[in-house]
Amino acid sequence: MKIVIIGGVASGAKAAAKIKRLLPHASVKIYTDDTHVSYSSCGIPYYIQGNFTDYKALLVRSPEEFRKSGIDVYLESKVEKILPLQKSILVAHPDQAELVKYDKLIIATGARPKIPEIKGINNFDGVYTVRKIEDAINIREKMLISKKAVIIGGGYIGLELFEAFVKNGLTVDLIEHNDYLMHNLDDEMSVLFREKLEENKDYNFKIYTGEKVTEFTGKERVLKSVKTASGKEIKTDMVILCSGVKPNVELAKDAGIEIGETGAIKVNKIMRTSIEDIYACGDCAEKTHIVSGKPVWIPLGSTANKEGRCAAMNAAGVYAEFDGVLGSTVTRCLNITVASTGLTEKSAKNIGFTPVSVIINKPDKVAYMPDASDITLKVIADKITGLLLGAQAIGSVGADKRINTITSALLGHLTAQEFNNNDITYSPPYSTTIDPILNAMQILCTKTERDC
Amino acid sequence: MKIVIIGGVASGAKAAAKIKRLLPHASVKIYTDDTHVSYSSCGIPYYIQGNFTDYKALLVRSPEEFRKSGIDVYLESKVEKILPLQKSILVAHPDQAELVKYDKLIIATGARPKIPEIKGINNFDGVYTVRKIEDAINIREKMLISKKAVIIGGGYIGLELFEAFVKNGLTVDLIEHNDYLMHNLDDEMSVLFREKLEENKDYNFKIYTGEKVTEFTGKERVLKSVKTASGKEIKTDMVILCSGVKPNVELAKDAGIEIGETGAIKVNKIMRTSIEDIYACGDCAEKTHIVSGKPVWIPLGSTANKEGRCAAMNAAGVYAEFDGVLGSTVTRCLNITVASTGLTEKSAKNIGFTPVSVIINKPDKVAYMPDASDITLKVIADKITGLLLGAQAIGSVGADKRINTITSALLGHLTAQEFNNNDITYSPPYSTTIDPILNAMQILCTKTERDC
Repeated sequence: MKIVIIGGVASGAKAAAKIKRLLPHASVKIYTDDTHVSYSSCGIPYYIQGNFTDYKALLVRSPEEFRKSGIDVYLESKVEKILPLQKSILVAHPDQAELVKYDKLIIATGARPKIPEIKGINNFDGVYTVRKIEDAINIREKMLISKKAVIIGGGYIGLELFEAFVKNGLTVDLIEHNDYLMHNLDDEMSVLFREKLEENKDYNFKIYTGEKVTEFTGKERVLKSVKTASGKEIKTDMVILCSGVKPNVELAKDAGIEIGETGAIKVNKIMRTSIEDIYACGDCAEKTHIVSGKPVWIPLGSTANKEGRCAAMNAAGVYAEFDGVLGSTVTRCLNITVASTGLTEKSAKNIGFTPVSVIINKPDKVAYMPDASDITLKVIADKITGLLLGAQAIGSVGADKRINTITSALLGHLTAQEFNNNDITYSPPYSTTIDPILNAMQILCTKTERDC
Repeated sequence: MKIVIIGGVASGAKAAAKIKRLLPHASVKIYTDDTHVSYSSCGIPYYIQGNFTDYKALLVRSPEEFRKSGIDVYLESKVEKILPLQKSILVAHPDQAELVKYDKLIIATGARPKIPEIKGINNFDGVYTVRKIEDAINIREKMLISKKAVIIGGGYIGLELFEAFVKNGLTVDLIEHNDYLMHNLDDEMSVLFREKLEENKDYNFKIYTGEKVTEFTGKERVLKSVKTASGKEIKTDMVILCSGVKPNVELAKDAGIEIGETGAIKVNKIMRTSIEDIYACGDCAEKTHIVSGKPVWIPLGSTANKEGRCAAMNAAGVYAEFDGVLGSTVTRCLNITVASTGLTEKSAKNIGFTPVSVIINKPDKVAYMPDASDITLKVIADKITGLLLGAQAIGSVGADKRINTITSALLGHLTAQEFNNNDITYSPPYSTTIDPILNAMQILCTKTERDC
């Protein structure tokens, strides 16, 4: 049994390890054009910030460790073509080309940063994307000798780097071309989040939304400033492009594998693509949204791990299903926790639900406890059925775990009415007698057409 | 419309406020033999510890505030008899007796500490139970002039006071007559919890289990020591009795109201007792366990609030159901968080499930993050159906919120298989790529007879 995996960051590495455990005698090979394998790209912003100092902590498993467990890893080896009929792939190693046969193929090619169209974008040093270990090392090195940085993009990666830079003393301009930061939040929650960020007076930063970078200026290779559509010129030593990512599907597409409506590789419940014996998982694969039942593309490390495991099991002949995602996320920015799960009110409306929602602001523990702090929670349900659709939270540590409590309810397709009296843990150091989640549910119940 | 409520700590106070909101013109009266109304008894250990200094912070709403909103509160007014046929109660005020008519009666008489049979228990000062505001004040005053304390009982109240005393520099002996602390945990989790407590070398304490206090000794009214069944004599300045509580049902029983098999007042889904127009809620009322469907008596402040609200709605003519409890709890002791929800493995077996379980010990966030710490998690499912039955966690802050994630799953009657790929939030400062809960579920799946 020959199992070939293309890509080895999260889902590819997970798949390889799982298969080897299920089929100890199978041949398992990972091919990747990357210089590293099996690393935590989610940890890169925290390395850059200096939460830990050795980038090697990001490496989950080295090529040597894979080899010891009988998995061959080929770094800097780009797969140029998949030949499904011949069940082979063409690999371009640094020094030679190779044709490799497979019985089962797992595509885990991930995603890559979108590069916005900006004049002069390729003309200067000091312009970075964030994806690979080298990016982490290069950005941190440059940050330590810089005074000013511009971040283009106000999604979670942009915000995590924003935190890293301002906490390292840089003056940062964050520029988002949409009107709101964090598109996983509804607009009013995004506004609140931005207000909370801007309450921080210890750091030097400006946030621009609805603003587009149009040009990079500089001399020779030295970056000097970015210019914006509204006519601003912002001096900077470095720029990070965080304008989102797109799935790496070209190889699959070229092989005739079906691409879904989201632009990612279409897979079924067992992570199989449209072609027999070829699986896809991780950031290159399309997902199903558990609440809406619709295809979505929400690339996240936690999902990649689960999908890698599921693809591996099926490739190894052990039936397993992956039901889909809720798009649950959490981001830390200047010690504010922003978390969300399920549909936003906006997206719920677009899909055809009739959403009602509640936003509450309550202490996260009994107010007489010394470290009580507020949490703002938005919960969304369908007006007619009461079905819970999603939730968003902004607060301190703990806001994310409240979202997880709702995540399980979304997974179980519970209504606000069913959740209303949920027996969640209570003690003064941990929550209020009626936890903010339950407060929100009580109000939400009164807004739906079902009895409470 | 005359609504009378007996008792006003948690569920009674909640019920009164809710009814007044639903029926602004109704007469709402609270009668209690207590000197205070509407207070957080769960907060008493933290007042004693000194987490906040004014006991008034424990008072949620004063009698004056109730009166302002049109609710009459009668303190130190003991209800001596309920006459269901006459729809009246007999009240003994400090200075006179009164017969009060009701249209709807809500019994919220709560629970009281069990007093163990110990020789000399009534002979000395410095022996306390913990229930009321006066207890809080008296215990704190005594603690501040004491060097040694004995706590009898290793449940959550005992442990919360234990923390309070050792953190205030006292030498504490905690004596539990059962073989294990915290009966909401399975034995091996209780052992682990005790080990973690005993790792604390900053404080002076000893924990005894399987040990019974048999005698209090002293001179005149001054307590000197406690003696135990195994022959120990422990010198002490004060003793706190935390040997559990029992429901105050005598008044209801005397009125012919049905008492359930657990010894608490039997109620149906709308919190009505066996007698028309009489409701019961809070610690005096029996509850239904959502996982087992069986009657249980688990008295908790969070449940009391929900039941008070439900009883109030029905008494006011607005239909509402209370489905039951999961027995979810969280306790902080020496900065260890212990939380649980649902059935223990032991109780699941007793009820007739065929439980399988998994215990894992994992970092609560990615190990390279500076403040990662371990969490030990036990999750229990039914072997045949995969149905999740309960969970227990020991760790730092956050252990409780992981339990809440499982709580929602218990509420939705999810299986380990359904939970397995739950899309809970992930980011390195908050969890591991595969959160400990999901790790546990993956293993649990392999132990059940359902496919994963």
